[in-house]
Amino acid sequence: MQNYPSKLLEQAVNELSRLPGIGRKTALRLALHLVRSQPSEVEKLGESLIRLRSEIRYCRECSNISDDEICSICADPRRDHGLVCVVETIRDVMAIENTGQFSGVYHVLGGIISPIEGIGPQDLHLEALLTRAGNGLIREVLLALPATIEGDTTNFFLYRKLLEFELKITTIARGISVGDELEHTDEVTLGRSILNRTPYESGMSRK
Amino acid sequence: MQNYPSKLLEQAVNELSRLPGIGRKTALRLALHLVRSQPSEVEKLGESLIRLRSEIRYCRECSNISDDEICSICADPRRDHGLVCVVETIRDVMAIENTGQFSGVYHVLGGIISPIEGIGPQDLHLEALLTRAGNGLIREVLLALPATIEGDTTNFFLYRKLLEFELKITTIARGISVGDELEHTDEVTLGRSILNRTPYESGMSRK
Repeated sequence: MQNYPSKLLEQAVNELSRLPGIGRKTALRLALHLVRSQPSEVEKLGESLIRLRSEIRYCRECSNISDDEICSICADPRRDHGLVCVVETIRDVMAIENTGQFSGVYHVLGGIISPIEGIGPQDLHLEALLTRAGNGLIREVLLALPATIEGDTTNFFLYRKLLEFELKITTIARGISVGDELEHTDEVTLGRSILNRTPYESGMSRK
Repeated sequence: MQNYPSKLLEQAVNELSRLPGIGRKTALRLALHLVRSQPSEVEKLGESLIRLRSEIRYCRECSNISDDEICSICADPRRDHGLVCVVETIRDVMAIENTGQFSGVYHVLGGIISPIEGIGPQDLHLEALLTRAGNGLIREVLLALPATIEGDTTNFFLYRKLLEFELKITTIARGISVGDELEHTDEVTLGRSILNRTPYESGMSRK
């Protein structure tokens, strides 16, 4: 039970502590920081959050978040529109973009099949992907879902759905992370990395 | 280097990551949470932060934050206005209020003397306290500053400043925290708790 010296402070703490991972103590610390900040700075923060929510859109093609109807990746003619990488979330798009290794476009599912969390195939954004596949615009679908049971289940479901189209279906490689030692790698990953061994290329480990 | 799929998202992440203790990863997580939230919720958050900063005031009497010119504590006729507790921050006011053990009013210094951080006596809010003391309105000043060298220095400075007025100067007790074991208490605290021993009262430890 906190006694707030000000209703304005209490409201701000209430609102901040609704955010994930922010408890009331952290919310109070943030609010008191804002009280001491420049009014113009606080206005910029508040307005950027409101604008983010009210003006953000989802790309009609890939469901990535976007400032426009089509996101900057889908709108880029230099990207390979025949190669579509299927990911769970917007964050995964950002993670893959940061590698600089992918030249295709994306499809954001918005979730993966998880019976425990009550997420079934009908909850995924799939239509736009199937439409693109049906129009013969896709040459290869690269499944880049989490290396979990839910990811595997979703991979299998998508594989079955995409079978009817003439396209190549691939998944990202699973193996030992760069920098990991064998003795600290779990058995399943180590086992798979042996089954899926690849031809040695000189200089490969530095890529 | 992040490639943000949206300028709006990038701006929100920039603004959020200016907050203390919030890095760019956390800021991104918060921003993407807001994208998925109800627009009305996000508006409430943004507006409460802007209002907090633009409408908050500092109590003319005690420098606590307040919705009005005089804070709710200073405006309360049931409080003992002859007993003034001097604290470093607004958070200390809240901490003491939460104990329910203090019936007087406060004075928020807004800092303590710290040569290392370049904070000298001239940086403290003192005038309102000295005015109140000069008007003969104060019977007792309770110094409730941190149990650090800076706190001790400030205590001594205030003691010297307040000597010219006819009032009692007290400090909060320093001793062993409730629940602490002797063997884990530092020597200075344990030593002081022996020097400052108090008469035994039955039921005291349960207070």
